[in-house]
Amino acid sequence: MTRLWNDPADFADEMIEGFVAANARSVRRVPGGVVRSTVVPDGQVAVIVGGGSGHYPAFGGLVGQGLAHGAAMGNLFASPSAQQVYSVAKAADRGAGVFFSYGNYAGDVLNFDAAQERLRSEGVPAQTVTVTDDIFSAAPAEKHKRRGIAGDLTVFSTAAAAAEAGYDLDSVSRVAARANDRTRSFGVAFTGCTLPGAPAPLFTVPAGRMAIGLGIHGEPGVDETAIPTADELAALLVEKLLAEVPDGIEVAGARIVPILNGLGSLKYEEMFVVYRRIAQLLTEAGLVIVDPHVGEYCTSFDMAGTSLTLFWLDDELERLWDTPVDAPAYRRGSVVAAAQAESAEVVASDVAITPGDAASQAVAQHVRDALEVIVRTVDDNVDELGRIDSIAGDGDHGIGMQRGSHAALAAGIAAVDAGAGAQTALSRAADAWADKAGGTSGALWGVILNAVASRLGDTGRPEAADLAAGVADAVRGVQTYGKAQVGDKTMVDALVPFTATLTASLEDHEPLLDAWTAAARAATDAARASADLLPRMGRARTHGEHAIGTPDPGAVSLGLITTALGELLAEKSN
Amino acid sequence: MTRLWNDPADFADEMIEGFVAANARSVRRVPGGVVRSTVVPDGQVAVIVGGGSGHYPAFGGLVGQGLAHGAAMGNLFASPSAQQVYSVAKAADRGAGVFFSYGNYAGDVLNFDAAQERLRSEGVPAQTVTVTDDIFSAAPAEKHKRRGIAGDLTVFSTAAAAAEAGYDLDSVSRVAARANDRTRSFGVAFTGCTLPGAPAPLFTVPAGRMAIGLGIHGEPGVDETAIPTADELAALLVEKLLAEVPDGIEVAGARIVPILNGLGSLKYEEMFVVYRRIAQLLTEAGLVIVDPHVGEYCTSFDMAGTSLTLFWLDDELERLWDTPVDAPAYRRGSVVAAAQAESAEVVASDVAITPGDAASQAVAQHVRDALEVIVRTVDDNVDELGRIDSIAGDGDHGIGMQRGSHAALAAGIAAVDAGAGAQTALSRAADAWADKAGGTSGALWGVILNAVASRLGDTGRPEAADLAAGVADAVRGVQTYGKAQVGDKTMVDALVPFTATLTASLEDHEPLLDAWTAAARAATDAARASADLLPRMGRARTHGEHAIGTPDPGAVSLGLITTALGELLAEKSN
Repeated sequence: MTRLWNDPADFADEMIEGFVAANARSVRRVPGGVVRSTVVPDGQVAVIVGGGSGHYPAFGGLVGQGLAHGAAMGNLFASPSAQQVYSVAKAADRGAGVFFSYGNYAGDVLNFDAAQERLRSEGVPAQTVTVTDDIFSAAPAEKHKRRGIAGDLTVFSTAAAAAEAGYDLDSVSRVAARANDRTRSFGVAFTGCTLPGAPAPLFTVPAGRMAIGLGIHGEPGVDETAIPTADELAALLVEKLLAEVPDGIEVAGARIVPILNGLGSLKYEEMFVVYRRIAQLLTEAGLVIVDPHVGEYCTSFDMAGTSLTLFWLDDELERLWDTPVDAPAYRRGSVVAAAQAESAEVVASDVAITPGDAASQAVAQHVRDALEVIVRTVDDNVDELGRIDSIAGDGDHGIGMQRGSHAALAAGIAAVDAGAGAQTALSRAADAWADKAGGTSGALWGVILNAVASRLGDTGRPEAADLAAGVADAVRGVQTYGKAQVGDKTMVDALVPFTATLTASLEDHEPLLDAWTAAARAATDAARASADLLPRMGRARTHGEHAIGTPDPGAVSLGLITTALGELLAEKSN
Repeated sequence: MTRLWNDPADFADEMIEGFVAANARSVRRVPGGVVRSTVVPDGQVAVIVGGGSGHYPAFGGLVGQGLAHGAAMGNLFASPSAQQVYSVAKAADRGAGVFFSYGNYAGDVLNFDAAQERLRSEGVPAQTVTVTDDIFSAAPAEKHKRRGIAGDLTVFSTAAAAAEAGYDLDSVSRVAARANDRTRSFGVAFTGCTLPGAPAPLFTVPAGRMAIGLGIHGEPGVDETAIPTADELAALLVEKLLAEVPDGIEVAGARIVPILNGLGSLKYEEMFVVYRRIAQLLTEAGLVIVDPHVGEYCTSFDMAGTSLTLFWLDDELERLWDTPVDAPAYRRGSVVAAAQAESAEVVASDVAITPGDAASQAVAQHVRDALEVIVRTVDDNVDELGRIDSIAGDGDHGIGMQRGSHAALAAGIAAVDAGAGAQTALSRAADAWADKAGGTSGALWGVILNAVASRLGDTGRPEAADLAAGVADAVRGVQTYGKAQVGDKTMVDALVPFTATLTASLEDHEPLLDAWTAAARAATDAARASADLLPRMGRARTHGEHAIGTPDPGAVSLGLITTALGELLAEKSN
């Protein structure tokens, strides 16, 4: 249950505000998240972490001396936007480059990668190691596909210690990759969690049952049993983790950090009872326990569950792990309070608009009309989109689309009022969408609108073929960023037939209205057909099979929006 | 919900074992709880805290550099026994005396006071300041009757800082008393909590409602409302606390530490949203916020709720508050890791038994038989005693009596087998009962059996009048320790008529069997009549009025046990 909020839409923002107010000695707010409020020497690699909110102490609580330099903080369970990630990274950069690390989830990869590209394009070196510690989220041979859970802490911590020790960017990445390679976690859950204002839990576990391997956003587990005794659970956790010792490690005498992490409403006392047996079993297995951790390091709102992480040390990792840490929710070792940095104001970039020519300004008016239609379509369908998404995902597709489309319209109107041409107006709208919506769908709509914008130009009137080319670019962009193929039950399932039909019809010299209408119909049909597909691995969902019979919400959105835009085109053609 | 345990009866023990295994760098286990595992200089006052378990980080998580020297850890929600408190204090004492601090609850006062007396009788100076921060548990004029909740932290912390700064025992007490005087808390709750193995919550709050002033063990609140918004709750908390500013403080410009404490399953994110508004309101009121705390400092198992504490600093308290702290669940300031102490084995005292004479050894056999009858009576009624207690108290009376009586019988048998006389056998049983049962009833049964034992002697055969005198001593002892009068709905309601009838009948020269039987009947009648009484303030209960119609479980136990002992006496008289 969640009980305390004002407007649920403001929850994440107000949470960050309160968090910063309570922890000003460690962090200060910047657009998109927080950075350290203490002095960081120039020439130190900046370690940036982040992800959706709702996992406190992850991620803001892990910013401070000896740990992260900054955290991009998205909405609840939604990736921060690329703009947010970029903004936090820029604020934390000390001239030695930026190292990104975060749990391996599609939406986060999409947005962090986009921010990384933007930094690189500006000459800021940037590298990434995603955390993939959850052993039940993919087979050992596909470790790179695994999700990141409480093992975040070992990777963030050793990477940050390396940065503080003066390692360069390549070396920080090397340390993080080795830490990730030597970190294995395994979790169980007893209940789901309920987001602020939501009428029901995001996902559930039957009463009296324990889900094995269930992800922290409800991603499907591998098994379900009756709730065991504390000792039986300890045995299960240890057994599974000792069945997958990282390559090249001799178990007898190996030094490990065990981290027993609570997901939110499992109590410390219960965890200590479980840890008692874990310590016995690890010792019996010949392992040497170093610096055990029992507490909450990466929660999932009020989810009841726990995970055990084993971090297999080597000499360098153990030395780095010994580095003192002083973050709002995590302190370790001998800590000397650091000096406060001057709080330089970080202002969101506000580049002036160069007006388009008269023809392009006229097209920009159509762009504005199109954005209005999109907003209306999303508003009309927001509940249904949320409902569909709650079956296979985390139920926030509707409100994410709403947040994004409204921000896009506002930015588009501001640009049009400032005399922008079509490209600038739509590109401003695209950036605002991605920034405010966050998550996967926000990033993808940002890519789509930006791709189309690039073909519109700020001078003259574009041809129908330019529009089609923009849409085709958008599909390539979405597939590159989202790494999804047709059949993965994503928006791509509707986007590919849409662009194929649009391009083919225009090449057959059909009028734009007819071509668009046919393409929208193809998208809608494909969205409907996606109900028969299994969702792609790695996508947040309760149980894959539950999603059969429900279409992909991203594909449905695309069908609805393209259909509505076809109707607008028809009006304008009359 | 609680989900993970082995045998619920072992929960607290196994929890402490796991806690110590996870935090060996800070604490080591001693009989009755934990003490610091780090070096403490000789001549430093030992600060001992404690209480029932289930409030982590309180109390074990608060032992470490700059904070407590030791914590007496009772069973779940049950006071540690006097023996446990004594044992922890002895292990922590460094020759400068012992300072006790804990939340003001009857069972804790009883047991800590008994331990304090024992220390003083051995020449160890000892002083106590109980924490009374909960403003809704008694009127301002009766602040000494108030309960202690999250304000524990400010009192423990400043007292410990004073001890580390070399203050003597009087000065540590003075600091703690002033900190307590300047600490005010106020809490709300949305749900109760469920102890391991319990089929239902200890107490409940109706769904969608918020109880105002509800205690952390379910003690009655003052009001109930619909759950407000986060901002409304912030306003309520601040308003009530600013309505009771400690004497002599000018609000404008006053420096305060705000502590927003989570009770167990309210999430950090929700607390940050509430804290955001609290910080605004405190600032608007002209207060200067110093070192704000938002987190879990004193939980109540998985209870959902929160409390706000305001700690009104003065120069000395602020200087002491700035002392670095490094405890398992609480760290503050610049911390330098301390050296580990040699882990001297602390062995529970094991004084050899001096045999009684033959006559007294024969009486000791009757003592053993009596203990067997008590065990059987408690076992036969354990569920019913638990049921009665769950209406007005925390439902553990039955299992507490079971734990105590079984330990008493085992100790009694061991003593008898070693040739003990009647006094020694019963006194060993009394100590074992108090030690293993913990809580209020354990301490009182220890007092009763010890009082009776003192009149039995280890030589010769006592008279019936000796027994009656012992029982009369017991009543005085219980009233002194428990500070309860007839009519308070405690065991005293049955004990007073029992001893009055027994003494009067013997003075009328009735045979012991008749006198005892009449006394047991009086006790049973009085226990039954206690159903019409309101429970005494300060006793753990859900809502006082709920207890009307249910007798006091301690009085019922006394009636059952004295009746069964009367039957044993009848058998022996035949």
